[in-house]
Amino acid sequence: MTIEIGDIDHVGIAVEDLEGSVQLYRTAFGVEPTHRERVEDQGVEEVLFPVGSSFIQLLHPIRPDSPVARSLATRGPGLHHVAYRVRDVAAALDHLRAEDVRLIDDAPRAGSRNTLIAFVHPRSMGGVLVELVQER
Amino acid sequence: MTIEIGDIDHVGIAVEDLEGSVQLYRTAFGVEPTHRERVEDQGVEEVLFPVGSSFIQLLHPIRPDSPVARSLATRGPGLHHVAYRVRDVAAALDHLRAEDVRLIDDAPRAGSRNTLIAFVHPRSMGGVLVELVQER
Repeated sequence: MTIEIGDIDHVGIAVEDLEGSVQLYRTAFGVEPTHRERVEDQGVEEVLFPVGSSFIQLLHPIRPDSPVARSLATRGPGLHHVAYRVRDVAAALDHLRAEDVRLIDDAPRAGSRNTLIAFVHPRSMGGVLVELVQER
Repeated sequence: MTIEIGDIDHVGIAVEDLEGSVQLYRTAFGVEPTHRERVEDQGVEEVLFPVGSSFIQLLHPIRPDSPVARSLATRGPGLHHVAYRVRDVAAALDHLRAEDVRLIDDAPRAGSRNTLIAFVHPRSMGGVLVELVQER
């Protein structure tokens, strides 16, 4: 059983000012957003900019009790997580469980863009919050 | 003048235990390192794992006064920076200067893997340390 990591799906960045950050990425890096979505489940509004095979994902909390709001309060804005594209999130979770990796999500759940996702606990990943993303 | 960002070149991760982290990525994610280099200029030893078009870069300080050592001391291990591949780092720096973006490197310098690199200041990038990478 292997996990078969493909590309970096996205780098998630927590921002305090979503519209200002969108403008910053447009003007500084010449990238254009192609997707915007409120993900109620995660308490965020996200904006995606395609860069090569991956996305830059700007994340802004829509509720004060969302994980991204807590991260902004404790760590400030900046890099929030990294997401790897996998062929099969459920199989990847089985593999990680067998390797005694601590999971946040025991089973795949719906992500944005009609993806299936799961988060891995940063305590098992050297402080890195890792997301697995399966395109459907 | 545009910056022409291509793929995410790598995600840089600061680790406290380099060999343990290499093992973790091998067993948890099934990825194999393809490059290891001491970058004296930056005071780090790095290990690269290819994932799709990008790399996961594990970073471990080789000097207590290196930026990565300071980051480990103040923020702990975890996501350290994101690097975007550009066609021309010097032109990208000119563009960023024109957009009043604060730079760490005023001119391109040698990176690992015979690349040219420059860092952009996180204060201008919403707390994200950004690296630009040009392959030669």
